[in-house]
Amino acid sequence: MLFKSLQQLVDDPDRGPGRIFAWFIQVVIVISIFDFTIETMPSISPELRSALWAFEVISIAIFTLEFLLRICFSKKGVRYAFTFFGLIDILAILPFYLALGIDLRGIRAFRLLRLFRLFKLARYSTAIRRYHIAFRNAREELLLFGATALIIIYIAAVGIHYFEGKVQPELFDSVPKCLWWATTTLTTVGYGDAYPVTVGGKLFTFTILAVGLAAVAVPSGIMANALSQAREELEKENAPKS
Amino acid sequence: MLFKSLQQLVDDPDRGPGRIFAWFIQVVIVISIFDFTIETMPSISPELRSALWAFEVISIAIFTLEFLLRICFSKKGVRYAFTFFGLIDILAILPFYLALGIDLRGIRAFRLLRLFRLFKLARYSTAIRRYHIAFRNAREELLLFGATALIIIYIAAVGIHYFEGKVQPELFDSVPKCLWWATTTLTTVGYGDAYPVTVGGKLFTFTILAVGLAAVAVPSGIMANALSQAREELEKENAPKS
Amino acid sequence: MLFKSLQQLVDDPDRGPGRIFAWFIQVVIVISIFDFTIETMPSISPELRSALWAFEVISIAIFTLEFLLRICFSKKGVRYAFTFFGLIDILAILPFYLALGIDLRGIRAFRLLRLFRLFKLARYSTAIRRYHIAFRNAREELLLFGATALIIIYIAAVGIHYFEGKVQPELFDSVPKCLWWATTTLTTVGYGDAYPVTVGGKLFTFTILAVGLAAVAVPSGIMANALSQAREELEKENAPKS
Amino acid sequence: MLFKSLQQLVDDPDRGPGRIFAWFIQVVIVISIFDFTIETMPSISPELRSALWAFEVISIAIFTLEFLLRICFSKKGVRYAFTFFGLIDILAILPFYLALGIDLRGIRAFRLLRLFRLFKLARYSTAIRRYHIAFRNAREELLLFGATALIIIYIAAVGIHYFEGKVQPELFDSVPKCLWWATTTLTTVGYGDAYPVTVGGKLFTFTILAVGLAAVAVPSGIMANALSQAREELEKENAPKS
Repeated sequence: MLFKSLQQLVDDPDRGPGRIFAWFIQVVIVISIFDFTIETMPSISPELRSALWAFEVISIAIFTLEFLLRICFSKKGVRYAFTFFGLIDILAILPFYLALGIDLRGIRAFRLLRLFRLFKLARYSTAIRRYHIAFRNAREELLLFGATALIIIYIAAVGIHYFEGKVQPELFDSVPKCLWWATTTLTTVGYGDAYPVTVGGKLFTFTILAVGLAAVAVPSGIMANALSQAREELEKENAPKS
Repeated sequence: MLFKSLQQLVDDPDRGPGRIFAWFIQVVIVISIFDFTIETMPSISPELRSALWAFEVISIAIFTLEFLLRICFSKKGVRYAFTFFGLIDILAILPFYLALGIDLRGIRAFRLLRLFRLFKLARYSTAIRRYHIAFRNAREELLLFGATALIIIYIAAVGIHYFEGKVQPELFDSVPKCLWWATTTLTTVGYGDAYPVTVGGKLFTFTILAVGLAAVAVPSGIMANALSQAREELEKENAPKS
Repeated sequence: MLFKSLQQLVDDPDRGPGRIFAWFIQVVIVISIFDFTIETMPSISPELRSALWAFEVISIAIFTLEFLLRICFSKKGVRYAFTFFGLIDILAILPFYLALGIDLRGIRAFRLLRLFRLFKLARYSTAIRRYHIAFRNAREELLLFGATALIIIYIAAVGIHYFEGKVQPELFDSVPKCLWWATTTLTTVGYGDAYPVTVGGKLFTFTILAVGLAAVAVPSGIMANALSQAREELEKENAPKS
Repeated sequence: MLFKSLQQLVDDPDRGPGRIFAWFIQVVIVISIFDFTIETMPSISPELRSALWAFEVISIAIFTLEFLLRICFSKKGVRYAFTFFGLIDILAILPFYLALGIDLRGIRAFRLLRLFRLFKLARYSTAIRRYHIAFRNAREELLLFGATALIIIYIAAVGIHYFEGKVQPELFDSVPKCLWWATTTLTTVGYGDAYPVTVGGKLFTFTILAVGLAAVAVPSGIMANALSQAREELEKENAPKS
């Protein structure tokens, strides 16, 4: 009886106690991410830092308990640990336990591993499934036009290198540097840290924007279309067969 | 007879005197908003300031009269005061009367409450109804992909914090600061107050733009689709049933 | 005989000599615009300036001759001068003749009237007709959502005035100044001449971008849809009735 | 026998050894482009520069061999050299051989001719065929609305010249200079190197953005639609006729 209700807890996030459990875990994940975000601020008081650390310990305890519950009561049993979501669960708690043994605090990249708990949210998201279907359907097209967009960015970089390389060597003296300009220009971000100053460079920018803006925007449109098709597919799947 | 025509005045903005009344109120709202806009300029002459204040008093008088007319002659009677538009009418005049009793001029936020009269325009707008239907139909999708967009912005912020945190601590030394960069970059605003300078940061920006631009643009597309579907729904509703 | 062929010249730009005449006039317009563009550069040599002036005189002569031909041989006769294109033809040559009598060169705005000859191109453009149909069909929607976009830009300006007015008075100390920031931000131009620096202002910017980007983009989408519908309408009109 | 299999090698990139050959050539092209990109960096060590030069020689050898194979074993024979792809193959290797004879290293433009080998990738790309069909179908519309976009950019430039020419002569004192501002503004890149500072200039920018953003975005939308129609056309072509 208890076994069955615990199984429902971890296996059925859509109804009854499983629903409450799912909400609880999601809230803990979000607070935990918020905790991590605040902790990166250098100016916080030692008291707040202690409080954040205390919540970190508590949330790790909750995630560990959740992971053990899933192993014990999931239909998949121990094999759960090797599923996609099982691995995410492990990655979400492992850094904490490793850091207890060895002093890894100095390594900044290590701290960022805490971000993995963000992916625990994926379990509850139906958006993931739609992105998955959309990617699968449009993979070929995304590759095709993504490659075209990359080649246009590359040509833009070589072109601006030719026109601006001598005049602004600190910004355009090599193609890799120019790729930065090409990326921020063709996505229309335009920070203003790098821009052409010669007449030739400005004319080239005009030309490449006229040709390239559409090409760089195409993959976004393909993805948007694929996502709306994915909805239709999912609705067909879920519709009652009668 | 007078009662009926006054009722038409406040209840039927599409025909006869009600139409003129509606236009008159809208013009007063727009001038009143314009008045408020000019008043925020610090360099205006005392004469102009007096004139603006005079118009403010007149417009409040008109809005109060309008509110009393609506209570007296609307089909809903006194209950009108507690409807959505009744509350907006109260919020549009209340700050003025409160400021007469107590000296609240020093409080800047209080002055901004005058903006509430902008929402009085909503009564006459058919766009509101379409936005309402569009939101209702696409709520689930907007939440789904809005959350995805937020998560991508968050990941962008954590990533740039890792790459640029040490080199540009004044801009990227905490994740909350980096969220500002992530927002202005992924919406392609790109003010240029914060941008990566390390090779790693630039490569990361390129990657997150390639992945994230489409995801951040998806909610806009969903809203646009929902608005055009809302038109069809409204046209069906209004079509004669024959 | 001569009369008839001259009538064809001005009235039938799709066939025979009328086609050549149309092309010739278009070329003169484009060169004349190019002439005007170069003339605004302060560093050009006196020789080039003389040559540009010579071409200006020649092009005015051609436009005057064209106008007289249209009056004499057009089916509409003298009434042609009061049609839309007739008025554009007059506006394209009038400034030149006025400037001969009075010395108006000092007035900069006057020089810009030469831009009117650009609109002479409209006669030959089928795009104009499509824009016209698209505007007529979507006028109501464009007004509706254009107004919504304006209101969102206005609310953005008032909000940023509240958050940044005290800290950056030179940029945000009045709502009209803030409207500039709101325009460049919500269109994602983002020059970087004005941006929030307070935490409140940045949070507000994030919120207004999340809400407003879609709303500001909607009129563009409506116009694009209306243009593609206009094509279908025009194709139906031109299709042979069988 | 050997002849036939060599013919398959160069003529059938979809199956068997031809497939491997196609992949091999593509990898060499990509590495060769990467090589060129790295070589433009001024700070690389002489050892790396030698290695890059060595690979350049090897890749030219491979491209030359490929070209000779295609001439010998392609169905078209020697005429292959005068096809579109034959000319690209020649352009990809010619600069190298020319540079052996004469010392052309000093001419920067000459070095950029190496970029031509990028177009060798076109042979293997199905995207090219779709862009070709899309351009053919939408050519007339692209010209129509591309011209409209250009005219709006031009009007924006003349307008801003009028408003800002006196105040910021270094940026706006001639229409050609203003065209740079108009391009970066209406594409929403907004570097921030040029922006209006007068009230008139800002109001004009607001107006031209309200009118022009949609017009400049229209050609992108047309291209995107044409590309998705091109897919349907290609699918119909490739579908089995039964």
